Amino acid sequence: MKFTCPTSILSENISLAQKAVSTKSPFPVLTGILFEANEQNSTITLTATDLQMSVETSFPAKIIEGGSVVLASKFLGDIIKKLPETELMFEYLPNEGKCVIKYGASEVSVATYRPEEFPKNEEVIDGESFYISGEEFSTFIKQVLFATGTDESRPVFTGVLFEIVGQELRLVASDTHRLAFRKTFIKREDTGKNINVIIPSRTLHEAVRIFGTVDELLIKISEGQVEFSGNGIKLTSRLIEGQFPNYQQVIPTAFKSNILINKKYFLDSLERAALLPRDKDKTPVAKFYLERENMIITSQSESGSIREELPISLEGEEFTVAFNTRYLIDVLKVLETEEIYLSLTGPLNPGVVKPVNDENYLCLVLPVRPS
Amino acid sequence: MKFTCPTSILSENISLAQKAVSTKSPFPVLTGILFEANEQNSTITLTATDLQMSVETSFPAKIIEGGSVVLASKFLGDIIKKLPETELMFEYLPNEGKCVIKYGASEVSVATYRPEEFPKNEEVIDGESFYISGEEFSTFIKQVLFATGTDESRPVFTGVLFEIVGQELRLVASDTHRLAFRKTFIKREDTGKNINVIIPSRTLHEAVRIFGTVDELLIKISEGQVEFSGNGIKLTSRLIEGQFPNYQQVIPTAFKSNILINKKYFLDSLERAALLPRDKDKTPVAKFYLERENMIITSQSESGSIREELPISLEGEEFTVAFNTRYLIDVLKVLETEEIYLSLTGPLNPGVVKPVNDENYLCLVLPVRPS
Repeated sequence: MKFTCPTSILSENISLAQKAVSTKSPFPVLTGILFEANEQNSTITLTATDLQMSVETSFPAKIIEGGSVVLASKFLGDIIKKLPETELMFEYLPNEGKCVIKYGASEVSVATYRPEEFPKNEEVIDGESFYISGEEFSTFIKQVLFATGTDESRPVFTGVLFEIVGQELRLVASDTHRLAFRKTFIKREDTGKNINVIIPSRTLHEAVRIFGTVDELLIKISEGQVEFSGNGIKLTSRLIEGQFPNYQQVIPTAFKSNILINKKYFLDSLERAALLPRDKDKTPVAKFYLERENMIITSQSESGSIREELPISLEGEEFTVAFNTRYLIDVLKVLETEEIYLSLTGPLNPGVVKPVNDENYLCLVLPVRPS
Repeated sequence: MKFTCPTSILSENISLAQKAVSTKSPFPVLTGILFEANEQNSTITLTATDLQMSVETSFPAKIIEGGSVVLASKFLGDIIKKLPETELMFEYLPNEGKCVIKYGASEVSVATYRPEEFPKNEEVIDGESFYISGEEFSTFIKQVLFATGTDESRPVFTGVLFEIVGQELRLVASDTHRLAFRKTFIKREDTGKNINVIIPSRTLHEAVRIFGTVDELLIKISEGQVEFSGNGIKLTSRLIEGQFPNYQQVIPTAFKSNILINKKYFLDSLERAALLPRDKDKTPVAKFYLERENMIITSQSESGSIREELPISLEGEEFTVAFNTRYLIDVLKVLETEEIYLSLTGPLNPGVVKPVNDENYLCLVLPVRPS
């Protein structure tokens, strides 16, 4: 294998592939990136996988000799960022077990693995597919992703539920203390088949970073696999097995009190209150006293105390409730409206945060028992 | 004590004082900042100390009632950054043992300590003093600071030697593997007294951050203490006890080879070579092959190898020497000239890096024994 290409192009594509490289794998070949040079279409394809998730990215290059090789990715990724911007000459020397990259009068050699040892990427075929703009995808995923859990013993909560009924996509995530829900419409051929799958949060984090700016992102879902593609890049991932619980039954439909509140002021107050986590367990808990035109937020610890007074518009009952401020901060940070609704069902029952003028989003948060 | 002042002013001054706050002290009062409100000159003075180093900073405020108190600095420093920009009302309530800071309709309370428990700052009197511009000070200190050691069992190497003879200031730092030397002229009354003191590297780090942009920095040195002042801020620190070794005798005066080399290209090459640290101890060692018009730099590890070829202009002998690339990178990063000299005395003797057109600076680096 032998080709030339600009430093920046190679660097960009290696960075992309590295997102799926296994950092600690018993199989050394998985710490590498598969390079494939295709003479027919003058394209280099890089593939990396940790067996859960894989990334495939292609770019044009002047190919002098086709072939394939796996390169140790850590040193490759570090050095490529430090090479001068030039036309690099890339050559695999199989007898010496290394790849040489030449730049001007200088060169680096990178250790290689045999391409035969690299796991084949399973194509996602016969799946259901739909399109969404990269920007919408990114916004919507971020609006639910923060609510996923990290407890590996309950895997269904470590991902986001993608539920598709007709042209409607519903995204749901929960760590059992809170639940975020986003609904949207997508471009999809009506195959009459509904979809109900859970995509790992790590895959979605990377998908947002890779596809956040593409015009059109194609998402294909098949038995056990999901594939995202756009801009010559393909991200494939296993799905999480298991059944997501019936989320609809936990979302309250009637409320004791509805509060309209300025998002920025509310967020600023919560971030200040969060600086005084409860002494016993370091959980940032604040009390919220609802009055007709004001909400009083208080929290205290050994270091001090805080009392915030915020103008609100309240419909319903005046009472007091306590929340983990972190949960409210997380949802306010992903909303873009100037004002939001906080709807409450009492001191021991879930509260719901909704943006004004958007019926397709909500985040449910369980209160903290008053101590 | 009671005063009002803008959020940003208070925040800035708290940040400054925090540089000297003790993060872990057996004396809780040392984790605090002393606030003193002086009605006569409408000035608030903040003082913090960890008994090694102290910072004192003053700012004007509308003082309603004078007095003093010590505030727990961790929460204070965190919350002040998150308060809205407004005229804060600051009040000490001695009976409740807390300070209240009011902003709009909201307020925070911060835990306090008794000011009597706070150690008095020792004034530096009867010392030798001189002036230097903040910018020069910052540049020169950075040119030697990187060469200080961290081994607390050899304290003289954990600071920078300030040697003053007449109007000449010499700064010297060494970790015994390398030595950086800067000479400059200062404004100073000729008292006929020479100075030879070692200032802790931590003090100098903070001094550069605090005084890097002041027009004129006053440095006072007395028995055991140094005081930096400018812009209403005072940084005081203990000196390091002990005698700095005779550095002049280790600086070579005759060389086998002198190399003139472009600093940026040399630095780029070294940073690439540093990505391949020696497998046995992870030290980034490179070999340098001197030729008449080129220098070849090589290094290798399990991950790969590198061979850099750089144009140089050599006077003297051609030979091969090995260096810890990190030591060369550190000195090149603090030099501003386009070209530098690397002067060598052979494969086992120190090399010296000098900027072109500046006889007042040098950095000596010991070579690594070829393995």
